[in-house]
Amino acid sequence: MNETEPGRHMAAEIAEQPDVLAGLVRARSDIAEVGARIAQRPPRFALLAARGSSDHAAVYAKYLVEVLLGLPTGLVSPSTTTLYGAEQDLTDVLLISVSQSGGSYDLLEVTQAARSRGALTVAVTNTPSSPLTEAAELAVDIRAGTERAVAATKTYSATLLALYLLVDAIRGGKAEHVSDIGELAERTLTDSAEGVEQAVSRCRFAERILTTARGYSYATALEASLKLAETSYLPTRAYSGADLLHGPVAAVDATTAVLGLASAGKGGAAMSDVFDTVTRSGADLLCVGSAAHTVSSAALAVPVPETAEEVAPVLEVLPIQRLALGLALARGLDPDAPRGLRKVTRTR
Amino acid sequence: MNETEPGRHMAAEIAEQPDVLAGLVRARSDIAEVGARIAQRPPRFALLAARGSSDHAAVYAKYLVEVLLGLPTGLVSPSTTTLYGAEQDLTDVLLISVSQSGGSYDLLEVTQAARSRGALTVAVTNTPSSPLTEAAELAVDIRAGTERAVAATKTYSATLLALYLLVDAIRGGKAEHVSDIGELAERTLTDSAEGVEQAVSRCRFAERILTTARGYSYATALEASLKLAETSYLPTRAYSGADLLHGPVAAVDATTAVLGLASAGKGGAAMSDVFDTVTRSGADLLCVGSAAHTVSSAALAVPVPETAEEVAPVLEVLPIQRLALGLALARGLDPDAPRGLRKVTRTR
Repeated sequence: MNETEPGRHMAAEIAEQPDVLAGLVRARSDIAEVGARIAQRPPRFALLAARGSSDHAAVYAKYLVEVLLGLPTGLVSPSTTTLYGAEQDLTDVLLISVSQSGGSYDLLEVTQAARSRGALTVAVTNTPSSPLTEAAELAVDIRAGTERAVAATKTYSATLLALYLLVDAIRGGKAEHVSDIGELAERTLTDSAEGVEQAVSRCRFAERILTTARGYSYATALEASLKLAETSYLPTRAYSGADLLHGPVAAVDATTAVLGLASAGKGGAAMSDVFDTVTRSGADLLCVGSAAHTVSSAALAVPVPETAEEVAPVLEVLPIQRLALGLALARGLDPDAPRGLRKVTRTR
Repeated sequence: MNETEPGRHMAAEIAEQPDVLAGLVRARSDIAEVGARIAQRPPRFALLAARGSSDHAAVYAKYLVEVLLGLPTGLVSPSTTTLYGAEQDLTDVLLISVSQSGGSYDLLEVTQAARSRGALTVAVTNTPSSPLTEAAELAVDIRAGTERAVAATKTYSATLLALYLLVDAIRGGKAEHVSDIGELAERTLTDSAEGVEQAVSRCRFAERILTTARGYSYATALEASLKLAETSYLPTRAYSGADLLHGPVAAVDATTAVLGLASAGKGGAAMSDVFDTVTRSGADLLCVGSAAHTVSSAALAVPVPETAEEVAPVLEVLPIQRLALGLALARGLDPDAPRGLRKVTRTR
């Protein structure tokens, strides 16, 4: 590898994901133990705390917890604790704090406060010795190895998988939907390569990209939007398909590239109206997912192997990471050295 | 009024807000009664369900409920109910469904399902006879009158105020912070007029606008972003100040207009790092709020009268609505007739 080649860290870490994911499944028993301890103190309500890419993993986990565990779930607004000192009663609450570095000050403060207010706290990090891991009662290690690129890739997919394994363990599952996830990730990278290359060409001169999905894949739309914005400096925005039709579709026209997630399952099926509408508005529609080939209005379909719908986000983000990398390079940028980025949030 | 003048409905409804807000405070006893009934069955958790502008009002309410009532709170992802049929146990949960029309199918389904699963349900609408009001156990009427413009203005500020009055009533408050809100709204429109006019000139040729805030005003940043996108078709995006520094600041440069909320209080104070950073990145920073004049790096400060911080979002959105209207007109668009917009969500 050329030591000065733009995007080399990001490219290498994208390619590591099949091994990282397979390794995490092999180490499932650690996560299963955490899940079993949570099941012994069954929560009635769940909260998720995160920032940046981890916040998108938290959105994914919110769907998992609501659908698979039947618990009402909220995403934490850290400032209600860190700025306003909200005195919430968190008895019977499960707080899952998600941070690859485990070093964000505000998540640390939120986790400490939640634990002191009665919540059962779990830290999901890539850094087992981090302050966040110390602060929480239970910990999940996502085992992604050191991440050198500023743009999170392998820590994102590993966080998704760790959260899936955790939720599955809480309900006493055996993780059967992800037993071959490493192999599927390998196939995803291979099968999507040609589509990604075409997508890079189509979007090279795009002035705005809008991403959209429904259901579990909404997390992928959020992550796609962030990844494209922070590597290619494009104005991007993610919408749930339902919200998009409610108002922002007015801003969609022939100058808009729309990246839509279309995975087999209920979320993807609910997108057909959205895809028809943006196409009628003149947008260039790129679809990614295991049902992408079924979207007749798509200008380009990037395939992803089919899985259980709740696992699809672990795979469908892979071609999107490659698209972000390819687009940054095509536009003459180095995604390993984005302007003004720090890897750990310093805000309170 | 010229019957074909672009934006005439939106302009008229913006100007109505002082009367609408004052009228809602006068009718406070209806909301206080709903609050008292909730206080008799004290919830342990709160959920908020909404779409579009109402979703931003829900974000505001989330901060109110967490800080003023001390309840852990979540925003509902409707699809976990409508697509995936999540079977959540909602005993001890307060569900507040927010919709000006009260006619969104998915909110109706979410509200019915939540009620059948044990939640205490409240509909906050501008349509007392709506299906949503029928479906919920309790109802709050925001009394904004018919809204003819497609872009929500008076229903947004009235929803914020109604939610504030509701939360204040649940804790047994006397609404003292909003007793003169109508008069303050009038002053807001007058005091901000010159600043708004300058902001329209500055942003007329902007290619992207980013909005940002922390704390209660984060809801205003979200609403500002949506309002600008749906009336002027600009690529816009809202970030919490903390999230912006974590990654997306990489996309901020001299071609970016940043609309920052700076209200007196903890949320505004926590923005100083953010304002410094975006200004160093070369962005054109426009600040709106009661502390806008204290932001030395701002290219333009649009003043808003000072109030208790938790009430500021009711006022600070007014100049932003005028900015959205003015910008649409300056760019030759009619905000009363946006492309492809429907006033009621039809998605499930």
